[in-house]
Amino acid sequence: MDQDMKGWFTERSPMWPGQAFSLKVNKVLLDTHSKFQHIQVFESSHYGKVLSLDGAIQFTERDEASYQEMITFLPINCHPAPKKVLVVGGGDGGVVRELARHPGVEQVIQCEIDDQVVEACKTHVPSLGCGFSNPKLTLYTGDGAEFLKTTTEKFDIIITDASDPVVSGEDEAESTKDGPAASLFNEDYYSRMKDRLASGGILCCQGESIWLHAELITRLVGKCREIFPVVEYAFTCTPTYPAGQIGFILCSNNPATNFREPVTVWDEGKAENMGLKYYNAAIHRAAFVLPTFISSQLCKTK
Amino acid sequence: MDQDMKGWFTERSPMWPGQAFSLKVNKVLLDTHSKFQHIQVFESSHYGKVLSLDGAIQFTERDEASYQEMITFLPINCHPAPKKVLVVGGGDGGVVRELARHPGVEQVIQCEIDDQVVEACKTHVPSLGCGFSNPKLTLYTGDGAEFLKTTTEKFDIIITDASDPVVSGEDEAESTKDGPAASLFNEDYYSRMKDRLASGGILCCQGESIWLHAELITRLVGKCREIFPVVEYAFTCTPTYPAGQIGFILCSNNPATNFREPVTVWDEGKAENMGLKYYNAAIHRAAFVLPTFISSQLCKTK
Repeated sequence: MDQDMKGWFTERSPMWPGQAFSLKVNKVLLDTHSKFQHIQVFESSHYGKVLSLDGAIQFTERDEASYQEMITFLPINCHPAPKKVLVVGGGDGGVVRELARHPGVEQVIQCEIDDQVVEACKTHVPSLGCGFSNPKLTLYTGDGAEFLKTTTEKFDIIITDASDPVVSGEDEAESTKDGPAASLFNEDYYSRMKDRLASGGILCCQGESIWLHAELITRLVGKCREIFPVVEYAFTCTPTYPAGQIGFILCSNNPATNFREPVTVWDEGKAENMGLKYYNAAIHRAAFVLPTFISSQLCKTK
Repeated sequence: MDQDMKGWFTERSPMWPGQAFSLKVNKVLLDTHSKFQHIQVFESSHYGKVLSLDGAIQFTERDEASYQEMITFLPINCHPAPKKVLVVGGGDGGVVRELARHPGVEQVIQCEIDDQVVEACKTHVPSLGCGFSNPKLTLYTGDGAEFLKTTTEKFDIIITDASDPVVSGEDEAESTKDGPAASLFNEDYYSRMKDRLASGGILCCQGESIWLHAELITRLVGKCREIFPVVEYAFTCTPTYPAGQIGFILCSNNPATNFREPVTVWDEGKAENMGLKYYNAAIHRAAFVLPTFISSQLCKTK
């Protein structure tokens, strides 16, 4: 049943065994190894430019808005005054690009572990890399979990835009190893974030796929419910992520936060005028509505 | 960037160029050509059994509920008395399996063009093929568009569970041809369905993906708005469909129909007790909430 796939990029991962997704490659723009990971940027035939880290697609230009807008505005629009924002990860520049749209955001601190990812996107994908010219941004290079231990600052919002915790080893097709984002998927990391949240602070973390990682999600959401008074799980539809969906874990240290109803309401007309492709207030509300199979499972963690 | 993909099934189509999705194959159960199409059934490593028609995945056991439940209960639960139902296509048995759950459905007529698909699923995939033992079902073999021309019956609900209108030619990798479902994607077909709807009748048709076929969807929804007083577009998330999503065009000849609010409300607990894996009343409502890029486009057809 195989077909000729020469000139295609194929994504496989131990985090989603038995399936693969491929994009046709027009031109390889970068193929290098940093201290942390294998970085590839290519121009695809139908999805614009694509960034892959350790063989996993991080974005395509065609559908990245569905991820970048949602991981940014789900938390931002639930906070009445999101002045000071910390971004952990997000080395492609998409989240800080989105943050520049919001007039209430006064200061953005970003901590990305791999400066070669930042350089790759600034050089090869200006549609995302432009985010780093956000004048409110201070960018640090380092491990986000370590940064949270050492910083004394407090934030209204913390966004963790991480890659997957587990990646393929390069030597054997089926071996696995911790990726550079492994330290961002455990309860210790969530406790550290809580320590760095200002009063009424909110966090939003990349939360994998309900179709592929229900166990990881249920465990993390359960742990978060021991730490925070308000915890919700939302999702967005991003065709080029595995299973076509990716979720977010949202936590608030303000018991009055209702994530399902944004305090800043951008209806469809307003969203379109702002240049948003995916996010609007109705999508915000709908993002928390989950299929029966996962909703009933997450309810049990309450 | 290629990897060894021996022992994998790979889906490519001229309807979604430049991308491919692959599943690992444990065992091929059927590989045959009917009068209409290339039928393949295989046992995958992680997605259960899979049906492919002309190289396009029709279902996997792991995620089929997200499609079958939604294409069935979005229309059914918006009709106060959905007694008589016509299913066009649906040769895998999934829709008629779902219809058996609903106590208000008294009679189901199905018209499937390819009886070899029906036999394939009855023999190899009883989890879907079991649908054909629905005692309320009368199954005809034939073209749905022709059936609508000749039948004198009227229906409360018409569900069109079609494959894609365009498929790959088998001789040259990049050639295209009309598939057996081509006659189900034009305004003439929608007019014929309208003629066969009883008073207050509702229809729901497979409506492709907002990420891949925005132009086709906008055109069809626009045409439907010339024919029916109420037209809506909804979607569901099915990881193994291209772009991870598939939509539905819903039309009613009752101007009072509000598709966004089901008249039969199955909340999450009820849905879970009924054995539903995906559908519930909240998911029903959220299915009509679309991202800004497509929502603004469809609004213009109003």
